[in-house]
Amino acid sequence: MRAVRLRLGERRDMKVSLGRKTLILPSPTWVVGTYNAGGKANAMTAAWGGICCSKPPSVCVSLREATYTYGAIVDRRAFTVNVPSADQVQLADYLGIASGRDVDKLAIAGLTAVRAEHVDAPRIDDFPLSLECALIHTVKIGLHTLFVGEIRDVVADESILNEKGRPSIEKLNPPVFSTGEAAYYGIGASLGPAFEIGKALQTAEE
Amino acid sequence: MRAVRLRLGERRDMKVSLGRKTLILPSPTWVVGTYNAGGKANAMTAAWGGICCSKPPSVCVSLREATYTYGAIVDRRAFTVNVPSADQVQLADYLGIASGRDVDKLAIAGLTAVRAEHVDAPRIDDFPLSLECALIHTVKIGLHTLFVGEIRDVVADESILNEKGRPSIEKLNPPVFSTGEAAYYGIGASLGPAFEIGKALQTAEE
Repeated sequence: MRAVRLRLGERRDMKVSLGRKTLILPSPTWVVGTYNAGGKANAMTAAWGGICCSKPPSVCVSLREATYTYGAIVDRRAFTVNVPSADQVQLADYLGIASGRDVDKLAIAGLTAVRAEHVDAPRIDDFPLSLECALIHTVKIGLHTLFVGEIRDVVADESILNEKGRPSIEKLNPPVFSTGEAAYYGIGASLGPAFEIGKALQTAEE
Repeated sequence: MRAVRLRLGERRDMKVSLGRKTLILPSPTWVVGTYNAGGKANAMTAAWGGICCSKPPSVCVSLREATYTYGAIVDRRAFTVNVPSADQVQLADYLGIASGRDVDKLAIAGLTAVRAEHVDAPRIDDFPLSLECALIHTVKIGLHTLFVGEIRDVVADESILNEKGRPSIEKLNPPVFSTGEAAYYGIGASLGPAFEIGKALQTAEE
């Protein structure tokens, strides 16, 4: 325990109040895929989201009502969440700048929409990881509305899977969004296994 | 556009269906701080969460009803979200293994709880970034319940701020949780500014 206390003592410094702001880290860089009323595929990038339930497996994304994607999710009650890799971050950024109301973003970005097998929304086939989601909750918070999607399938490029068939964060290298800096970062070094490295502290419980 | 298309062409490979699972990346490693009915501070680590609204600034975390923290949030209608740095990942992992119902996790980890100024919950002072949150929505999804907290203040170590006074993801180096691998990773190289690097594709819109 002494080592831990010393380490903490070294890093304590002045606390600064930053006010009522969404300054938390890390955030994801996810691309939400939808069909509009005419059945045309669209995709927009969103950083306000996260996993929100294990059973049923669910993910949430929050969108402004003004976005084109918002109306599509409400109409179709479905969306996909697609995860780009670091080398596709320029495409993801573009999908967060332009609106599907004005242009065919997927055509301009050279991306391919494929109908999801389990929900009424398009997967973006070029991105290595996609979740097919059925809308199960809608929570109007304020400027943003939170959509909870039940994950009906996860579709991955075989090349990003580890030896256990799970998505490898090193192979996928998903862009991390730094909220206050409005910038993207890659994934760094391994820090160790979860539910394992903390066990050393349990000896102090006795 | 040709360069983008070629790059995408190179990485397309076999698609694999992984089923109904919470296999999305990246996820955060956040420590939720609460007071129990007796006013004792506790903290637990959660990876199911994200920002969910800009106005009012809000963050969501999802917890199982079985956790000790769940009852504390329902009772006090407040919580903090504390972000450790990579060199504190062992502490964060411990806070996700043990339960405050059984042990005084903060004492064992050598961490200091400080009453939040704006909500009825403790900040974990040793962690470099903390959000003080007032509960504004509770959504029972299934095994997990999603709590939306309005951010009443962000408190940061001065040492993790950039020249604009915003949290620097490189200085904070928050652990990223890899869901399917149950492992933590640090932050990697900069991939460029958001709402900027995608502008190059807008020339193709005309």
